Amino acid sequence: MAIKVGIVGYGTIGKRVADAVALQKDMELIGVTAHTYNYKTEVAKIKGYKIFAMNGMEDFVQNGIEPSGNINNLLDEADVIVDCTPKKVGKENKAKYYLPKTVKAVFQGGEKHEVADASFVAQCNYKEALSKNYARVVSCNTTGLCRTLHPLSENYGIESVHATMVRRAVDPWDIYHGPINAIVPVLELPSHHGPDVQTVLHHVNIFTTAMSVPTTLMHMHSLIVDLKKEASSEEILELFRNTTRVRVVRNAEDVRSTAEIMELAKDINSFRGDMPEICIWEEGLGVKGKKLFYLQAIHQESDVVPENVDAIRALTGFKDAQKSIEMTNESLGINKY
Amino acid sequence: MAIKVGIVGYGTIGKRVADAVALQKDMELIGVTAHTYNYKTEVAKIKGYKIFAMNGMEDFVQNGIEPSGNINNLLDEADVIVDCTPKKVGKENKAKYYLPKTVKAVFQGGEKHEVADASFVAQCNYKEALSKNYARVVSCNTTGLCRTLHPLSENYGIESVHATMVRRAVDPWDIYHGPINAIVPVLELPSHHGPDVQTVLHHVNIFTTAMSVPTTLMHMHSLIVDLKKEASSEEILELFRNTTRVRVVRNAEDVRSTAEIMELAKDINSFRGDMPEICIWEEGLGVKGKKLFYLQAIHQESDVVPENVDAIRALTGFKDAQKSIEMTNESLGINKY
Amino acid sequence: MAIKVGIVGYGTIGKRVADAVALQKDMELIGVTAHTYNYKTEVAKIKGYKIFAMNGMEDFVQNGIEPSGNINNLLDEADVIVDCTPKKVGKENKAKYYLPKTVKAVFQGGEKHEVADASFVAQCNYKEALSKNYARVVSCNTTGLCRTLHPLSENYGIESVHATMVRRAVDPWDIYHGPINAIVPVLELPSHHGPDVQTVLHHVNIFTTAMSVPTTLMHMHSLIVDLKKEASSEEILELFRNTTRVRVVRNAEDVRSTAEIMELAKDINSFRGDMPEICIWEEGLGVKGKKLFYLQAIHQESDVVPENVDAIRALTGFKDAQKSIEMTNESLGINKY
Amino acid sequence: MAIKVGIVGYGTIGKRVADAVALQKDMELIGVTAHTYNYKTEVAKIKGYKIFAMNGMEDFVQNGIEPSGNINNLLDEADVIVDCTPKKVGKENKAKYYLPKTVKAVFQGGEKHEVADASFVAQCNYKEALSKNYARVVSCNTTGLCRTLHPLSENYGIESVHATMVRRAVDPWDIYHGPINAIVPVLELPSHHGPDVQTVLHHVNIFTTAMSVPTTLMHMHSLIVDLKKEASSEEILELFRNTTRVRVVRNAEDVRSTAEIMELAKDINSFRGDMPEICIWEEGLGVKGKKLFYLQAIHQESDVVPENVDAIRALTGFKDAQKSIEMTNESLGINKY
Repeated sequence: MAIKVGIVGYGTIGKRVADAVALQKDMELIGVTAHTYNYKTEVAKIKGYKIFAMNGMEDFVQNGIEPSGNINNLLDEADVIVDCTPKKVGKENKAKYYLPKTVKAVFQGGEKHEVADASFVAQCNYKEALSKNYARVVSCNTTGLCRTLHPLSENYGIESVHATMVRRAVDPWDIYHGPINAIVPVLELPSHHGPDVQTVLHHVNIFTTAMSVPTTLMHMHSLIVDLKKEASSEEILELFRNTTRVRVVRNAEDVRSTAEIMELAKDINSFRGDMPEICIWEEGLGVKGKKLFYLQAIHQESDVVPENVDAIRALTGFKDAQKSIEMTNESLGINKY
Repeated sequence: MAIKVGIVGYGTIGKRVADAVALQKDMELIGVTAHTYNYKTEVAKIKGYKIFAMNGMEDFVQNGIEPSGNINNLLDEADVIVDCTPKKVGKENKAKYYLPKTVKAVFQGGEKHEVADASFVAQCNYKEALSKNYARVVSCNTTGLCRTLHPLSENYGIESVHATMVRRAVDPWDIYHGPINAIVPVLELPSHHGPDVQTVLHHVNIFTTAMSVPTTLMHMHSLIVDLKKEASSEEILELFRNTTRVRVVRNAEDVRSTAEIMELAKDINSFRGDMPEICIWEEGLGVKGKKLFYLQAIHQESDVVPENVDAIRALTGFKDAQKSIEMTNESLGINKY
Repeated sequence: MAIKVGIVGYGTIGKRVADAVALQKDMELIGVTAHTYNYKTEVAKIKGYKIFAMNGMEDFVQNGIEPSGNINNLLDEADVIVDCTPKKVGKENKAKYYLPKTVKAVFQGGEKHEVADASFVAQCNYKEALSKNYARVVSCNTTGLCRTLHPLSENYGIESVHATMVRRAVDPWDIYHGPINAIVPVLELPSHHGPDVQTVLHHVNIFTTAMSVPTTLMHMHSLIVDLKKEASSEEILELFRNTTRVRVVRNAEDVRSTAEIMELAKDINSFRGDMPEICIWEEGLGVKGKKLFYLQAIHQESDVVPENVDAIRALTGFKDAQKSIEMTNESLGINKY
Repeated sequence: MAIKVGIVGYGTIGKRVADAVALQKDMELIGVTAHTYNYKTEVAKIKGYKIFAMNGMEDFVQNGIEPSGNINNLLDEADVIVDCTPKKVGKENKAKYYLPKTVKAVFQGGEKHEVADASFVAQCNYKEALSKNYARVVSCNTTGLCRTLHPLSENYGIESVHATMVRRAVDPWDIYHGPINAIVPVLELPSHHGPDVQTVLHHVNIFTTAMSVPTTLMHMHSLIVDLKKEASSEEILELFRNTTRVRVVRNAEDVRSTAEIMELAKDINSFRGDMPEICIWEEGLGVKGKKLFYLQAIHQESDVVPENVDAIRALTGFKDAQKSIEMTNESLGINKY
């Protein structure tokens, strides 16, 4: 019987997770919550998704959408909620709705680790969320770090990691925030990404610094990994080529920037033009003794989408991590080309 | 029997036209030409498109692609070529290849009007290209102007048009050109767009000025149209709502910028995340006596794609313009939502 | 005896007006108000400007600045206040401070026309503010429009004006607001700039539309002016060359964009690297019958600075507009090169 | 007797070095070379700088500038040439002009180390250029690295340095190059900056990676330095506060980004609104054992300007490095506030 899934919060992540859930053969999308009528709810209606009103129904009704109820009605029908609300709202929703209604929930990386039974990256620690009540899919940056550090840790051992995260300042649709022409340092040392990786890869010694730059497409990470065992760059590239949800891209094929990665994503007709795979440049990876250097690009809007799908399965007791990842990848076209 | 179509030039426009041709029931994509191996040719191979080498085959063969011949082999098989090469190359290709081989060809707006028998916007002057040898699909900006000026001219008559074109400086994938932080005026008066409109709408009196701004997504046009007959803004919005390949967007639905138009395009799963329809803001259109003001956004990468498909039909003698437009729209999902 | 001037609000405009006032031989800068300690107040201290605390003194004292009192202390000493606070605060300050204390005040363009006895552009209507209590220096865009439309109106008569204002989205220092990659239409018709011009040039028939683009340097206006009398472009360029606080720039000298105008400003060692003059491109100006087309660039941070200085003189009864403009220009190096 | 200095190449660096030389009491600016008439040469004329024509005089004469001769005439009068031409041209000029004429010359960082007798950063290795024929002022990024690594090396010893350089893509005036919306990795490992530091700090073990981002203002470096001796962050901040041509900036004073550093530079009326000092964020510096982390911002247009002045003195036999630095700083207002 299909897992019944409700989406609370229908923004950048929520709308993607809704589409992804709708593609799973073992899941049923019950509906999505929304605060007000706008083009996103109009599209939800076109796609046949039920809308549950957070704030009263008038705004929807006036615009020709008949909501299917409120959030409590959604909770009554759902086995699992994926909470895609902004930072801190998930915690409030847990207290107000999910705990009292005893509904399982998946949270996003804007929430703290403590909100859930486990912080989660499917290919790293699926089992930690198995049959639990709450899982937290870590942020886009943390997911990206975990996906590439995990196989290094498994195969070569990691002494320490130092990463500089160069963040896209806002998502492409966001016209309200800047900067337009500046680099903005994140003045915390370490940035929160380092400790956050440790909620998934508990024993990796990692230190991160960060800054924001005026682009909307992807984040870029510059990593220095001190490995315990020496390895050639070709061995490590081969390892990454065989790692799920990771993609090795090549300057030699004219993939020279985050812009061309996004172009490639559209060219291969990926789901929504997204690039959920972490992209590592073949020509930007090198070793010097036991030190490994690489550059990876993270599509902040989409890399966590397959994680949310797998987290739903983990919470509801689907035991085979590898199988879940394959089903999700297959449905979303991940690592297909 | 299917029209056999070859694509010469496989960049921003060429790859889209190839995909669009491949979707037409009455057409067969023979293949595409390419100069060198890169991610675009890799994707073409994945999609099963035959590649014809412009420059010799080694580069392809070394990278695991077996070209199906050179441009002459493509010409031998094709009924119509769509030439999507950069400015001025189309003219050279005509002299060198299409004329000697007596192959019909569709050119793009970077070529001069004189290269073809007719400059072409399907919903304006399909008949001018009917059964001719050469058609020229006008540039993205000119196509946008023609699509919205044509119904105004037909219904209310146009005394004169003055438009300021605010151009995105480069396409999203182009990391080489700027400006990063400046507005660059186009110092020709009028800009070339005005005269170019007259190659399609021969009797419209139009004057345009232009500038470039640091964005990659869409162009924006600010238009002032002196109509011959008065009309209310609601009448004109209704006219535009009923005009094919035009879309009225609403700030009231949170479509507040070119960024949100592109987000909407992805949300509705449009072909490649493109927005081939010219977008007019409901709240940005007004009338003052016989003067009409409106703002329209043009997706420079895609609005000409359906025009190329229709131009192929026109050249090969398909008589029913309306029917061609419907077939193209249906296949590409245009104006579906 | 020197006019005693106080500055309320020490941001983008306030700090420039303070510097400009400090350069006037007939004025004395009493001091500036500030809310909190930051690099701007640190610089004020370095320059020897007295600081009057809006919110209590602790923050300043802790950082080594001894405020000279609060706003009331400043008002007690000042003949004229230049209010450079954000939109709507000026109106509140008038009710709370300037009216009760019967201090004359200059407001900025963020306030409504009604806040003052006259809206003001020195070269257009200096006399309207003469010996009045309150003047309002209009916004950077309105100032720019008035400076170039006024001589056209005086010399050729204006039937009507249609302008598209392409606005820089934020000032260079502002890292908080966007857009980073979008064009955002201003969806009011006309935009407020048109009616605002009429608070200064009362009889000019003008209609404006506007949009925001991702740049920080300058606004760009594309204007169409229907003149009452025909004129050649050379005559009009000559008129602009002889208009104060206007500068004709030339693509032929490699001034091709707003970025190169700002570079030129630094090259000529202008006050702060500012360009208070409205810049018109020689090659972007043309006539077609009685229609005049031109493009002008406006440095939003500085074009109103000399207006504030002249407004101070006007309010305090200095009768000779021409002389005031010359004194201000001389002190600030305006139109020197 | 004043050192006679000629500037070959009058662009971003050349025009600044000319202005700086003109301010030195012990130097005389003979003139500058230029290829064609433009706003920069117009400004040179205003400033009274003699212009020597590289390409023939007609273009200048037609625009009202009377050149003082050609490059050979400049060489005849000059004791030292500062060559500010684009990459590789300096080497050609050396062979063609400076060697045959036996004129001393200062080159820029676009040239290879081998072009000169010494690569040069005044506060690190002034003596290496003393009384030599040719010095090479290293690039803006290398200069920035050397200025902050040198005192660390002297005081604590450096085991190794790993730096990620996030480069502004172009200078503010450059409207031709991008990217507008992408991050572009530099796919060489290490990037050339690391080896280049070693031309000045010969024994520092440094590895750098780099990327380009869409901003025009400043570069940002994220550094990890393994020190030989432990030190507290306060000790290191104190060291940097006492290092010439370095500035510690504070988020607590609202200096939160490269944009606000440039605003601060204008506020303090620095030379041209430049920030020749390397800026380190107080709140972005931290230590973890013997590892030191810090973020520094580099104003690519100006940090090398004082170096060029000092290099002139070194080549002409002025022995006291400290004194030269003080004279240069005093004249340019460096570290004044």
